[in-house]
Amino acid sequence: MPWSLEEHAYRKLSLQTDARIVFLIFDGLGDLPGPNGLTPLEAAQSPVLDRLAAEGACGHFDPVAPGITPGSGPGHLGLFGYDPLRFLVGRGVLAALGIDFPLEPVDVAARFNYCTLDGDGRIVDRRAGRISTEENQRLTGILDAKLRDAFGDVKVFIRTVSEHRGLLVLRGEGLGAAICDTDPQATGVPPIDAHGDDEASERTASIVREIVARAGEVLAGEPKANGILLRGFDRHPNIPSLSERFKLRPVCIAQYPMYRGLARLVGMDMPQAPAKLQDLPDALGAEWEGHDFFFLHVKYTDKAGEDGDFERKVGVIEEVDRFIPRILDLGPDVVVVSADHSTPASLKAHSWHPVPTLLWAPGTVRPDNVDSFGERACIAGGLGRQRLINLLPLALAHAHKFQKFGA
Amino acid sequence: MPWSLEEHAYRKLSLQTDARIVFLIFDGLGDLPGPNGLTPLEAAQSPVLDRLAAEGACGHFDPVAPGITPGSGPGHLGLFGYDPLRFLVGRGVLAALGIDFPLEPVDVAARFNYCTLDGDGRIVDRRAGRISTEENQRLTGILDAKLRDAFGDVKVFIRTVSEHRGLLVLRGEGLGAAICDTDPQATGVPPIDAHGDDEASERTASIVREIVARAGEVLAGEPKANGILLRGFDRHPNIPSLSERFKLRPVCIAQYPMYRGLARLVGMDMPQAPAKLQDLPDALGAEWEGHDFFFLHVKYTDKAGEDGDFERKVGVIEEVDRFIPRILDLGPDVVVVSADHSTPASLKAHSWHPVPTLLWAPGTVRPDNVDSFGERACIAGGLGRQRLINLLPLALAHAHKFQKFGA
Repeated sequence: MPWSLEEHAYRKLSLQTDARIVFLIFDGLGDLPGPNGLTPLEAAQSPVLDRLAAEGACGHFDPVAPGITPGSGPGHLGLFGYDPLRFLVGRGVLAALGIDFPLEPVDVAARFNYCTLDGDGRIVDRRAGRISTEENQRLTGILDAKLRDAFGDVKVFIRTVSEHRGLLVLRGEGLGAAICDTDPQATGVPPIDAHGDDEASERTASIVREIVARAGEVLAGEPKANGILLRGFDRHPNIPSLSERFKLRPVCIAQYPMYRGLARLVGMDMPQAPAKLQDLPDALGAEWEGHDFFFLHVKYTDKAGEDGDFERKVGVIEEVDRFIPRILDLGPDVVVVSADHSTPASLKAHSWHPVPTLLWAPGTVRPDNVDSFGERACIAGGLGRQRLINLLPLALAHAHKFQKFGA
Repeated sequence: MPWSLEEHAYRKLSLQTDARIVFLIFDGLGDLPGPNGLTPLEAAQSPVLDRLAAEGACGHFDPVAPGITPGSGPGHLGLFGYDPLRFLVGRGVLAALGIDFPLEPVDVAARFNYCTLDGDGRIVDRRAGRISTEENQRLTGILDAKLRDAFGDVKVFIRTVSEHRGLLVLRGEGLGAAICDTDPQATGVPPIDAHGDDEASERTASIVREIVARAGEVLAGEPKANGILLRGFDRHPNIPSLSERFKLRPVCIAQYPMYRGLARLVGMDMPQAPAKLQDLPDALGAEWEGHDFFFLHVKYTDKAGEDGDFERKVGVIEEVDRFIPRILDLGPDVVVVSADHSTPASLKAHSWHPVPTLLWAPGTVRPDNVDSFGERACIAGGLGRQRLINLLPLALAHAHKFQKFGA
């Protein structure tokens, strides 16, 4: 895939320095006004974020392009400086990366859900009553053992992700990944038969159909999880790392598999993440030496948005605001607060609205007139409205990580 | 012509839904301050537009690219989401579309004006004293009959557009459209001889020269319209329709041939348009069932701008403002108020200034702090400043007409 002129320039100009950049990412932060006329970010008591906004520069960033609602993959690729329209990553690959499954270049991966089928083979529950992770592990262990070596030269790996979610990987020469989802994303209908768009993919799809059939036999007696639904067939996309592109030594502090997977995709180190939100600064501090780019991921703003829970979203923002001083105590050179996309509580879903963003960098940032961190306040910010892929280069510049371009 | 990655994504993500989008387009709306320091839009008493601006999001859109002054063709293509730098449409094609002439792929079309020539063949009046449409029809009937079959395998069609304006179409295999204008856009000089840039076009140009000569003979005795001036040779560009690109069922409510032609080019339905401005809402209501995208074109703001008539431009805006409530009564999901370009009254011409724009969409729009609709007010709008080709995708997003991009 050819690089744009900007990407070429950024790569060529990048410098390794000791300056440290923290990306504090509130998943799904952007929102719409709630009943009181304010968004969760505007309603939150967040004096530290307001101070950073006042001292720094603010703006709005379109995750992919105006009007496009991103999934978590495209949103995070944009944050990491990769054009989400050119780097497409399938759900299967994200799932594999998230559970540390060592994907090889020949592998084809897909996400699957355990589901509940009725006597006629129609889908009753696309998530099999959200079975427990332990139940998933039990069933997955049986399936993996039965199917691993059942297809000759093509090896089959079946792994637990969490709850009803699993990973299927096929390994062998000559496989194809252009295979349709078997999940119809609806109940009352049977799963879709896998089929491939080209010869290699159709050959691979025939193995997938056989796997689905045998899994059905193995799971026949299960009360909830008696079938599987596959989606997001893909290969590892071999994305150039942040180290290759920007000479960064990046580290990820995130709990959820998908975000860890995305961070691994761009070459971030991956320590164990703390279970509790307020332990994030300590986890960050533990990685302070040896790294210069820190991706901190806060999932719960997105969860609250998806649940339509305005107040919980406010609460998460306020909780994070209280521990930001401990991040600042570490002495970062640049702090960016942003998001991968908006998840308005009123829509209970991701949306296309641009994400409010602040860039704090003592001594190098040009301040604007924004004095609080919120959707409306950021409109007047000095960063204006631009594409999210520009945000990382802006942070690098404020950390003096780019040489001058041209004489 | 290859599509951009954004265009690909928009096309792939688009969904057909029942949500209805109204594009209320004031031709040439954008302006500069007049004697009282306000622009016509700022000076107009337009409480409804101000309310929509307060409830919605505002911004400025560059019709083509910063600094470029568009003709009506590029301006409208931008509004309809087509990059005007890639989709070039000649005036001849627009004229043909505007009068419902059924252009075929082999055809080459050009606009012509009847003109007045003096005894030495120099242009005295480029518009032949703006002869009446009836007079045009009389002359055009004679020319068409005389020339239709005068060139063997190449058929000639000559049609009335309106007043001094006409359409020439050549139909035959192997024609070329790279032919210069014969209109020198000046008086006191003779028309330019047609010539072609390549072999096929030069062959075609030789037919055009012969047509001009024979037309001169036929019209020799006419007091006003004794010559013709040609411009905008082109073929039908075969632009993919709004239905193909965005799954829309669009309809155009416009009176003027050129705008109807542009709308037809992108596949809009085309009912008879009302003669009076205040009848626009009723015409819209008559098309409400069966359509989900409504292009309403108000020509008179541009005309007033071209005439340098500040007060008349204010009056048109106020007249439209009064009938907008009747549009809102129909229950649209998204209303966009924008323009194809600016036509400042002080410049008496189209200009490059971005167009003030509001997007109103209850429940899905993120409001900003703008509380009136005007050039200066829109600078602080949440839509920022961007290219006009982004406006339709933004409207589609606010009508929930895009799926999520990626997992």
